[in-house]
Amino acid sequence: MHLSEITHPNQLHGLSIQQLQQIALQIREKHLETVATSGGHLGPGLGVVELTLALYQTLDLDRDKVVWDVGHQAYPHKLITGRYNRFHTLRQKDGIAGYLKRCESPFDHFGAGHASTSISAALGMALARDRNGDDYKVAAVIGDGALTGGMALEAINHAGHLPDTNLLVVLNDNEMSISPNVGAIPRYLNKMRLSPPMQFITDRLEEEFKHLPFLGESLSPELSRVKEGMKRLAVPKVGAVFEELGFTYIGPVDGHSLEELIATFKQAHKMPGPVLVHVATMKGKGYAIAEKDQVGYHAQNPFDVATGKAKPSATPKPAGYAKVFGHTLTKLAESNPKIIGITAAMATGTGLTKLQQKLPNQYIDVGIAEQHAVTLAAGLACEGMRPVAAIYSTFLQRAFDQIIHDVCIQNLPVFFCLDRAGIVGADGPTHQGLYDIAYLRCIPNMVVMAPKDEAELQRMIVTGVNYTDGPIALRYPRGSGYGVPLMEEGWEPLPIGKAEQLRQGDDVLILGYGTMVYPAMQAAEILGEHGIEATVVNARFAKPLDTELIIPLAQQVRRVVTLEEGCIMGGFGSAVAESLLDAEVMVPVTRIGVPDQLVDHAKADESKQSLGLTGPQIADRILKLFNQQSQANEALIEQV
Amino acid sequence: MHLSEITHPNQLHGLSIQQLQQIALQIREKHLETVATSGGHLGPGLGVVELTLALYQTLDLDRDKVVWDVGHQAYPHKLITGRYNRFHTLRQKDGIAGYLKRCESPFDHFGAGHASTSISAALGMALARDRNGDDYKVAAVIGDGALTGGMALEAINHAGHLPDTNLLVVLNDNEMSISPNVGAIPRYLNKMRLSPPMQFITDRLEEEFKHLPFLGESLSPELSRVKEGMKRLAVPKVGAVFEELGFTYIGPVDGHSLEELIATFKQAHKMPGPVLVHVATMKGKGYAIAEKDQVGYHAQNPFDVATGKAKPSATPKPAGYAKVFGHTLTKLAESNPKIIGITAAMATGTGLTKLQQKLPNQYIDVGIAEQHAVTLAAGLACEGMRPVAAIYSTFLQRAFDQIIHDVCIQNLPVFFCLDRAGIVGADGPTHQGLYDIAYLRCIPNMVVMAPKDEAELQRMIVTGVNYTDGPIALRYPRGSGYGVPLMEEGWEPLPIGKAEQLRQGDDVLILGYGTMVYPAMQAAEILGEHGIEATVVNARFAKPLDTELIIPLAQQVRRVVTLEEGCIMGGFGSAVAESLLDAEVMVPVTRIGVPDQLVDHAKADESKQSLGLTGPQIADRILKLFNQQSQANEALIEQV
Repeated sequence: MHLSEITHPNQLHGLSIQQLQQIALQIREKHLETVATSGGHLGPGLGVVELTLALYQTLDLDRDKVVWDVGHQAYPHKLITGRYNRFHTLRQKDGIAGYLKRCESPFDHFGAGHASTSISAALGMALARDRNGDDYKVAAVIGDGALTGGMALEAINHAGHLPDTNLLVVLNDNEMSISPNVGAIPRYLNKMRLSPPMQFITDRLEEEFKHLPFLGESLSPELSRVKEGMKRLAVPKVGAVFEELGFTYIGPVDGHSLEELIATFKQAHKMPGPVLVHVATMKGKGYAIAEKDQVGYHAQNPFDVATGKAKPSATPKPAGYAKVFGHTLTKLAESNPKIIGITAAMATGTGLTKLQQKLPNQYIDVGIAEQHAVTLAAGLACEGMRPVAAIYSTFLQRAFDQIIHDVCIQNLPVFFCLDRAGIVGADGPTHQGLYDIAYLRCIPNMVVMAPKDEAELQRMIVTGVNYTDGPIALRYPRGSGYGVPLMEEGWEPLPIGKAEQLRQGDDVLILGYGTMVYPAMQAAEILGEHGIEATVVNARFAKPLDTELIIPLAQQVRRVVTLEEGCIMGGFGSAVAESLLDAEVMVPVTRIGVPDQLVDHAKADESKQSLGLTGPQIADRILKLFNQQSQANEALIEQV
Repeated sequence: MHLSEITHPNQLHGLSIQQLQQIALQIREKHLETVATSGGHLGPGLGVVELTLALYQTLDLDRDKVVWDVGHQAYPHKLITGRYNRFHTLRQKDGIAGYLKRCESPFDHFGAGHASTSISAALGMALARDRNGDDYKVAAVIGDGALTGGMALEAINHAGHLPDTNLLVVLNDNEMSISPNVGAIPRYLNKMRLSPPMQFITDRLEEEFKHLPFLGESLSPELSRVKEGMKRLAVPKVGAVFEELGFTYIGPVDGHSLEELIATFKQAHKMPGPVLVHVATMKGKGYAIAEKDQVGYHAQNPFDVATGKAKPSATPKPAGYAKVFGHTLTKLAESNPKIIGITAAMATGTGLTKLQQKLPNQYIDVGIAEQHAVTLAAGLACEGMRPVAAIYSTFLQRAFDQIIHDVCIQNLPVFFCLDRAGIVGADGPTHQGLYDIAYLRCIPNMVVMAPKDEAELQRMIVTGVNYTDGPIALRYPRGSGYGVPLMEEGWEPLPIGKAEQLRQGDDVLILGYGTMVYPAMQAAEILGEHGIEATVVNARFAKPLDTELIIPLAQQVRRVVTLEEGCIMGGFGSAVAESLLDAEVMVPVTRIGVPDQLVDHAKADESKQSLGLTGPQIADRILKLFNQQSQANEALIEQV
């Protein structure tokens, strides 16, 4: 049987180990080939091919439910659940998603994108099953990195308390998050992996026996037997932590041995209550280049399979925001030892690797633990440090309460740097950074800024680092800047709450925020060609808003237009509308941004196009508004 | 020395055990007397009197830092850090706060109110200390309930990974959250408390020995010694879980023995790296009535010390929203077995105790774990259940990402019931429920509703339970309703997104949301007396907003006023402003709500008064706006 013939995972039932190995090989080929062409997550999926096949051979996927944590390791799952033929559309507009989605397949029992949610969701399903009097199996597959996220531990605490609720947790232990793991839990798992328990403990015992009477060098057969009995008694159970927390622990199991995995899962399915199967896997397994560089090949842009090297882009791209961020922060940190960069397991993505390499003492990776990251930052701020919490917009959602409760209520100077704010592209709805303006600006004491380009990003990093009056947040997008000259010196902070006027015109005031400033300028040029003169302001701060500048400008024009790469419900445009209404300025306000809908995966430019966020589209929309107004006015005049 | 003479905790240095016992007695007296008079948290503080005294005698509070988790157990701390004389103002306007606040005392090293934050904050301080080359001590005091919160576990994972960072975690194990604890971690702690380790293990071994050769009944002295050696070897260390996670574990210690506590803390302070001291305490210790009813006396309204009975209110109050919620949900759940009420350790506060008692199979307490609660609810919803997540507005902040990522993106029908939405009174800034309208309405697929009174609360509970198109949230305030008749039958769901017009007038449109509808009506009556006629609408839904009703009404009046008990940045008023601007309705909009500031503790009525949220204040403000407009118009006419 070829992989392409598998459209339902139950077709795996009854296949021999050899047949499964063939399928495994085909999955790896298709996986590798597709990611090499389209880009996407590589290492996580390659590591769980056998785990997936073994698990699905022992389950009935018409009844049983599997919840994959994060979902970036679920490409093998996708390939055996009816998506082989469309798999080449991976992460492309209208194609197969890079994460799991309930609406994409009935076998995607729970969607994801963020880490650490699977055990909670699976436990919810298991409790529903029991209340419905049903008896199907529910399994969560979670990585060792995701296990350090607080909500996974909350779920472990809850599930371990429910001995009558059957639940299988498969711990996919590849010893990595995206970067090597942080924390005592991964270290503990590692200890279990490295130390086949019996051998480890008994070796230690052997040493201790020497100090005991009657158990010296040469033993009588009877005492020998006593000694063996003692060993049996004294061996603590591996996985004791999980056992103490109410789980039956099985493992570690070789995650690339189908025999071992199948036997283990069969055994696990028979056990009542919560069961944890500890599977030792290797990220990138089967692709030697990825095995060797597990961080580099966690996810990839298109690359050449033979060499592993990225395919050169048609046109070289300007430095990305993350890179400029990492460079600038490191440079500032060199002269200010109080600066501490904090990441939640995203050193590479946030650009903090440079700080990590150059100034390791000013860098902290807390693991997948955004909540802890923020309150840790608050603690650092109490003692006079300048903590810089570099967390993607979408992941900072997880620390919303900590931002309010630990940072803003106490007005502590924590600097939040939100990468991936706005449209993120191929990662899709779970990763879009659309809500941060709305969720941050409603909190007292918070400052919210966004740069128009990568040079202004630098100015704003300087601003954030120098601002000691309270919390301050900086949002900037995924991807490349505009190639504008970067600053290497003379970095003055920006005045807080002050906008920048870029253009003067009497008809319309266009207020651009962050990435929408350049499109605003472009729209203004186009409007000019049609006889509509625009004032353009780079707002810089969504909070505090520069009302001193904006209100008088708004009074001089016939219409105000706000532009933002974020949700328009409660976002930057709402802030402008609020301020104008508070000042009783009666002018039409059109808020352009992301409407109240989810934004699916696609290239970022495609998404922006379909949302009407490009310069020409904005110009077009404004033109139409003015035309409507003119027509309405004329109609009114003719009537009289 | 009398407690009143202690203004600095270092005055405890050198006091004898007997003297400390005297102080402990005085703390308990003052604590009990004050809470009996003013209301406040009782059990938690009474349980940690000796813990506080012992810890502070072994620390130098001019240098060392102590972070108290939650802070409701820190009244003894307050009494020995210079607040004895003002302690009678506890939880009153301008008085001593019920939680810790950095601005209240230099000894409140980190503020709190929510659970599970202390280890993160303390670790941040410890890392700052080390980077500053300093060497003071940092301690976190956390309850066993708070330890089940994910962020505390994230912090444990991180701290356990840092063997060179000295940090003391004092685990105040009173076997309770507010209610009895949930989860495998508390059960594990309990096991340690109940089973003095040596005895427990060796008893079990004794049994096992019987099956070994040579170790039957009567032993030679040599084999006896072998047996003892075996026991020593085989005894697993107590606190193995913490030890595996990198902590040095000490305990359990009798939390009411000053000698034992002082000796233990002294020992702990000498140990390097992360150290956890497990202290077994009793909630309510020293006040027999509270010891017996630990849930009831967690926090109290004013009561009689001799009997423990609540002092009767001057006027009987109508049923509170929480009680109506508990009653109504239970009634609905009786006829709908799919309804599952979920609480995060707040059974009493949310009113879910009734459901717990009557329909235990339709009730889930997940412990202090809001994140897990929400994703568990999502899992339940996937399998056709009607999960009702009853979580205070302020605590739901902690599950913000789960609401977006697990519920709204997947459009799962989870019903969120947010008690304590709005001004909460004496609990102060950490507990105010001011942000939920803003943080919920920006999420696609979410419905946000609020009732004008407790009868409408019932209608909205029916609405939420019957709504299966996606997520829906219901916010309602702390405290009493208006005493309107409750419904016992004929419970029809409300149409989603439909408002209710209550009054007609041509001058002003007042849109009241939730608790602000009655004040809106009151304001309208007053305005009528001054010749200004108001239309009043009970908005019911902040999202979707009833634009069909609101826009035509807004076009007929000279001004729109929105009223909400929530932050005006991004809140209900902004939603109205957005809709009017989108429809190009040019009418002045005045948004009245909680401005962009923290709201301190006080009686809820006092806070509302000082924020201008009462009916007469609103009428007054609207009158002034109309007068200003008239004057401006007259001035304009005279000019021409």
